[in-house]
Amino acid sequence: MATTPPAALPPTIAWIGDETGHLELLDQTRLPHEFVVLRLDSAEGVVDAIVRLAVRGAPAIGVAAAYGLLLGVRRLRPLPAAFVDATRTVAARLAAARPTAVNLQWALDRCLAAVRSQPTLAVLWQEARRIQAEEIASSRRMGEHGAALVRDGSTVLTHCNTGRLATAGDGTALAILFAAWKRGVRFSVLADETRPLLQGARLTALELAAAGIPVQVVVDGAAAGLIARGQVQLVLVGADRIALNGDTANKVGTYGLALACAAHQVPFHVVAPLSTFDLRCADGSKIPIEERDTREVLAVGGQALAANGVSARNPAFDVTPARLVTSFVTDAGILQPPFPAAIKNTFAQRR
Amino acid sequence: MATTPPAALPPTIAWIGDETGHLELLDQTRLPHEFVVLRLDSAEGVVDAIVRLAVRGAPAIGVAAAYGLLLGVRRLRPLPAAFVDATRTVAARLAAARPTAVNLQWALDRCLAAVRSQPTLAVLWQEARRIQAEEIASSRRMGEHGAALVRDGSTVLTHCNTGRLATAGDGTALAILFAAWKRGVRFSVLADETRPLLQGARLTALELAAAGIPVQVVVDGAAAGLIARGQVQLVLVGADRIALNGDTANKVGTYGLALACAAHQVPFHVVAPLSTFDLRCADGSKIPIEERDTREVLAVGGQALAANGVSARNPAFDVTPARLVTSFVTDAGILQPPFPAAIKNTFAQRR
Repeated sequence: MATTPPAALPPTIAWIGDETGHLELLDQTRLPHEFVVLRLDSAEGVVDAIVRLAVRGAPAIGVAAAYGLLLGVRRLRPLPAAFVDATRTVAARLAAARPTAVNLQWALDRCLAAVRSQPTLAVLWQEARRIQAEEIASSRRMGEHGAALVRDGSTVLTHCNTGRLATAGDGTALAILFAAWKRGVRFSVLADETRPLLQGARLTALELAAAGIPVQVVVDGAAAGLIARGQVQLVLVGADRIALNGDTANKVGTYGLALACAAHQVPFHVVAPLSTFDLRCADGSKIPIEERDTREVLAVGGQALAANGVSARNPAFDVTPARLVTSFVTDAGILQPPFPAAIKNTFAQRR
Repeated sequence: MATTPPAALPPTIAWIGDETGHLELLDQTRLPHEFVVLRLDSAEGVVDAIVRLAVRGAPAIGVAAAYGLLLGVRRLRPLPAAFVDATRTVAARLAAARPTAVNLQWALDRCLAAVRSQPTLAVLWQEARRIQAEEIASSRRMGEHGAALVRDGSTVLTHCNTGRLATAGDGTALAILFAAWKRGVRFSVLADETRPLLQGARLTALELAAAGIPVQVVVDGAAAGLIARGQVQLVLVGADRIALNGDTANKVGTYGLALACAAHQVPFHVVAPLSTFDLRCADGSKIPIEERDTREVLAVGGQALAANGVSARNPAFDVTPARLVTSFVTDAGILQPPFPAAIKNTFAQRR
C-alpha cells in the first residue's frame, strides 16, 4: 500500500480550457497512496472538495473558490439580470465551506469586486486566473525572501502542510525550503505528522521526499522535547488567518510549537502571503475556530481508535499570539516586530 | 469493530496459583477492540510483553518484571548453585526491555535483594506479591491524597494512560479521578490521544467510560489551544522516572503540555508512587530517552500513513523540568516546591 513518491506530483489545482472549461483538483484525501484527480464543473463540487479537504491550505482554497464561483454562476443560464446578486449568493455558499482561512473570503471578495465593475463570465474567469497567477508569484517571492533563514547543516521543523499541495505555487513555509535547497543549502526537515488528518506525514513528507530533501516524520507531541534537546534550529509554519496585531490562526498544534520555540530561543517564523492577513480582524480573539467532525479524531482510515461511545473534540486551528512570532515572511518581504506597525505600514504602502 | 466498554475490564496483571503458577496480562495492544488475556510462563514472554507494550505503565511493568524474574529462574532446574547470579542475569534481561521507566529496575532490585538474603523461589514469589500489593495500596493512597485537587464542574486534561491499565491498582493520575468521582465530585475529562500508540484514545477513554466518567478524546496538538481558551482547569499526568531535583520523564508530549499550563496558570500535577523517583539520578539530563521503532509513527493498525521510503523519529518520552510542575502527588503525600528538599526529606523519613 504505501506508494513511493513520484519525482513530480500532479498539479494541486488546474483550470482546463477557457471560461467554459473545468477545474481539476488533486484529491489530497487519497494521498500519499493514490493520485486521483477530481474533475469539477459545479460550485457544489468545489464546496464539497473544500469541506472534506480534498483541496486544503489557505492559498489553495482561495484559488479553488475563485474558480468555483465561475462554475457556480456559469450554470445560471441564461445569465440572470441580477448577475451580481446571483454571484454574491454563490460566493456566500463557497465562503461558508471553511470559516477560519481568510484567503477564501479574500479571493471571493476580489471576484465580486471584478464582477461589480463588469458583470460578465469572462471577467470572473480572468480574475480567478489572475488570483492563481498572483499566488504562484507570491509563493516564489516568499521563498526568495525567506531562503536565507535556512542554514547549512541545520534541522528545520514544520507543522501541517504548507507546500505545493497547499497553494497554487511552491507553498508558503515549504517554498522557503524549496528555494534554500535550490540555492545549494543542505539541511534536514522534521515534519510534525499533524493529527488528526496527518497532513505532515501524508503530504509534507511526500513533497519533500519528491524534491530529494531529507525528511523525518515525528508525532506532534515529540516536537517540544526535540526542541528542548537542541535538535531543531528553525521552525517554519504557515497561517490560515493573521490579525492586524499579528496574532496568527494556523493548524491546531501550532501554538504549542510556538511556546516550545519561545522557551528555547528557537526562531519561529510564520510564512504567509498578504492575502492571509485579515485587516478587519483586530486580534486573535476575533478569529473563528472551526470545529470539525469528531470522526476525524476517533478513526484513522476508517479504523476506529477508541471504544464505541467515546466522544471527542476536534478544533481544527489554534491561535498563536504575536509575541511568540519571530517574523512574518510575506510576499512583500519580512515583517519584524513590532508587528502592528509593520503590518499597517506594509498595507499602507500597497494602497 | 469498535467495542462498547464493558462495565469491568479484566485485570491488568494477575498471578494465578502459587509459586509454580503463571502470569496473566491483559494484552493492551489489542484494546479497546479485543479483550485478550496472555498466559505467560517464561521471562522471555514477559520481556516480549513489555517491549511491545502488551503491558505498559511504569508501575505495571515493575510488577510484571518481578513475576517475570520468578518465571525466568524457575526454569533453571535443578536450581543452580549460583542461584543469586542466575537471578541477576535474568533480571538484566528484563531490565533492558525498556530503559526509561525506573520502576522496572526498582522492582528487580527489590527482588534481587530478597534473593540475596534468602535464595529460594518462595522468597522471590513473596517479594513479587508484596510489590503488587504495595502498588495497589499506593494507587489508593495517591487517589486519596489527590482527590481534593479536582473541583466540581471542572474539566481535567490528562495525557497517555495512567489508570488501572498502567498499574496494579487504580492508577496514578487516573486514581485521583476515580477517587474524586467516588466522593461525588462531578467533572469531565479531556484525554490526549497520545500518539504514536494512542494510549489516551484507546485506554484512558476506555477506562473512564467504563467508570461512567464523561471523557472526550483530543489530538495531542489541541491541548495547548484549549488551555489558552480557558477550557481546562487542571492537568494530571503520570511519570516514568523522576530525578532528585524533580525533573520528570513521562510519555512524549508531556513537556509541551507543561509549557502550555505554565503559560496560562493551569495547575500541572505529576502523580507517581515513590518507586518512580530515581535517587541515583540528579536531574533530567541523566534520564535515558528510549527511541522506539519508527513503524509506530509511520503506520496505525498496519495501515501506512506516509509514502514509502519516508522515515521517522520516535522518542517515546520527554523530560519536563521541575520548575513547570505544580506538585507531585505521591503515595507518601503531596510534595510542594522546592522539590529537591521535599524529595530528599520524604525519602529521609522512610529510612
